Amino acid sequence: MDNLIKLIKKFNNPSVVGLDTTLTYIPNHIKKEAILKYNNTPKAAAYAITTFNKKIIDEIKYVVPAVKFQMACYEALGYNGIYSLQQSCEYAKNSGMYVILDGKRNDISSSMKYYSNAYLGQTELLNGKRYSAFNCDCLTINGYLGSDSLKIVLEDCIKYSKEVFVLLKTSNPSSAEIQDEKTSNSIPIYEKMGEICETLSKEYIGQYGYSKIGAVVGATYPEQLQYLRERFKNTFFLVPGYGAQGATAENVKFAFKDGIGAIINSSRNIIAAWQKDLVNEYEFAKYSKIKAEEMKADILANI
Amino acid sequence: MDNLIKLIKKFNNPSVVGLDTTLTYIPNHIKKEAILKYNNTPKAAAYAITTFNKKIIDEIKYVVPAVKFQMACYEALGYNGIYSLQQSCEYAKNSGMYVILDGKRNDISSSMKYYSNAYLGQTELLNGKRYSAFNCDCLTINGYLGSDSLKIVLEDCIKYSKEVFVLLKTSNPSSAEIQDEKTSNSIPIYEKMGEICETLSKEYIGQYGYSKIGAVVGATYPEQLQYLRERFKNTFFLVPGYGAQGATAENVKFAFKDGIGAIINSSRNIIAAWQKDLVNEYEFAKYSKIKAEEMKADILANI
Repeated sequence: MDNLIKLIKKFNNPSVVGLDTTLTYIPNHIKKEAILKYNNTPKAAAYAITTFNKKIIDEIKYVVPAVKFQMACYEALGYNGIYSLQQSCEYAKNSGMYVILDGKRNDISSSMKYYSNAYLGQTELLNGKRYSAFNCDCLTINGYLGSDSLKIVLEDCIKYSKEVFVLLKTSNPSSAEIQDEKTSNSIPIYEKMGEICETLSKEYIGQYGYSKIGAVVGATYPEQLQYLRERFKNTFFLVPGYGAQGATAENVKFAFKDGIGAIINSSRNIIAAWQKDLVNEYEFAKYSKIKAEEMKADILANI
Repeated sequence: MDNLIKLIKKFNNPSVVGLDTTLTYIPNHIKKEAILKYNNTPKAAAYAITTFNKKIIDEIKYVVPAVKFQMACYEALGYNGIYSLQQSCEYAKNSGMYVILDGKRNDISSSMKYYSNAYLGQTELLNGKRYSAFNCDCLTINGYLGSDSLKIVLEDCIKYSKEVFVLLKTSNPSSAEIQDEKTSNSIPIYEKMGEICETLSKEYIGQYGYSKIGAVVGATYPEQLQYLRERFKNTFFLVPGYGAQGATAENVKFAFKDGIGAIINSSRNIIAAWQKDLVNEYEFAKYSKIKAEEMKADILANI
C-alpha cells in the first residue's frame, strides 16, 4: 500500500471519494449537453457520467489522494458505461490519484485470472499483444471462495505493483448473517477471512508496514473495526459507511493506528452534496471539494 | 425456474454450455478475419470472441437449453469485451436459449440495485427513458453480504421474470476455508446460505416446485451436493465442476431428484474440445455440438 500511503501523507488526508456516479446526481446543464451530443442514448448517459467525474476530479485532486469507482453504476449502462469507467479511471490516474475499482469480484482461480488481467494485470490480445483495459491501482474482492483465487490476484499485485482489498466485515445491515458466524476456532468468519489474507500476504509488506492485501471493514460496526485494527497490524483498511450510511468520525477513528492504517470512503455525501444543500448546479464540482475538505477536517480532528 | 425447466424438458437435456470464451480457444481463420477487419486491437479480439460464440450457439441451440457466460473473460477486454458480451447474450436469447450471466456479483443494497438494473431489470437513462443493457435471464450472486442485497435482486426477479443463482458450495479446491465452517447452529456456512435463500424466496415457487433463487453447488464435492439436494427441495442447482474440473456424471447425479432439479455446466470440455482432439478448425462449432450431445448422454445415463 506504499503508493496509497504516500499520497495520503502528501495530502494529509486519509479519505477517498467514491465516484458512485448515477444520473440522478448530475446537473441539468451536463445532461442537456449529453443529449445534444448523442440524443437520449446509453452513450449520452455514459458521456454525462464521464463529464461529471472529470469535473469532480479536477477539483478534488488538490485535496484527496484517491477515488473509488462503484462498478455497478457503470455496468448498469452496458459497454457504454464501461467505456465511461475506463475513461474516468484514466483521467483520475493522469490527475495523480490512486484509483480503486470497487467490483467485489471473485471466481475460481481459472476465471479469477481474467478478472485479475482486467483490473490488475494485462490481457493478451491476438498474436500475443498485451493490453491493460483499466488504468487503476486496486480492486476490491469478495473472498467467499477462499485462498486459491486470492493467490492468483496476489501474483499480479506483485508483478504489476497493484493491491486489493478483501471484504471482511461489510457495512450493510445484514452483514452479520454470514460474516459474524463463529468458526471452529471460535472466531467470526470476518476474522478468519482476515487471517487468510494476512497469511497469504505476509511476505509482501511495504515500507510503512502494510501488506498488498488490504481489508474492507465497515465503519457502521465500530466495535468490530476496533477489534480488527488491533488484530491485523499489517492490514490496511478501506472503510465504507461514513456519511450517508450513518457512521461518524467518532466511529471511523478506530480504523487508525498512529494516524495511519486506513482510508475512509464517502460517496453520496461528497458528489451529490450540491443537490442536498441546494447549491447552484454550475458549482457542483467546487462544492464537492468543499465537502471533501470538511470530511478531511472531521476525520483528522478525531484520530 | 419455470422457463429454464421448460427448455430442459424440451431438449431432455439438463446441461448448460459455458461460453467462457478466451482467445486461446478460437480458430486461426476467425482470428485472421478479426485482424483484417479491426487490426490487432481489443475490438478485433472482442469481434473474434463474438464470432466464435455465435457459431457455437448456431450448433448447440438444437441440443442444449442454456448458455452461461463467464463475465471475467469479457471484462478482460474492457468495454469492447462487454460489447461482445451484450451481442452474444442477444444472439443466444434470439436463438431461443436461456442465458445465465456468471458474474458472482454482490454489494450493499444501494449499489446492488445497479447490478440488478444491469443484469435483471432496467437502467434509467436521461429523462426517465428505460434501458436493458443485457438480454439475459439470470445472474450468479456471491451472498457473503447476507440477505439485504438478495432482497433487492429478488424484487427485480419477480418484476421482470428473472432468476439468480447464489453461491453455496463452490467447486474450487479452497472452497472449504470459509464455506465449510460450522455456524452456531452446527450447520456449515454453505447450508446457512441456502437457508437464507430458501427463506427469502419461499413465496415465489414456480410450477415445477422451484423458487426464483437457485444455488451454485460444485460437483467436485458430491457428498455436499447430495446433502444439499436433500436439504433444499425447492432450490434449483447450477452445478459447475463437471469435465475440466474433474467431476463425473457419477458425481453430478446427486444434484437431481426425480430427474430434475439441476443444470450441469461444462465449458472448456465443450467449446475447446476441437483443439484437444485435433479436429479441423473449420469444424470447431460442429464438434462442440457433438461434445454437448456426449455430455447429455453421459448425464442422462446416470440420473
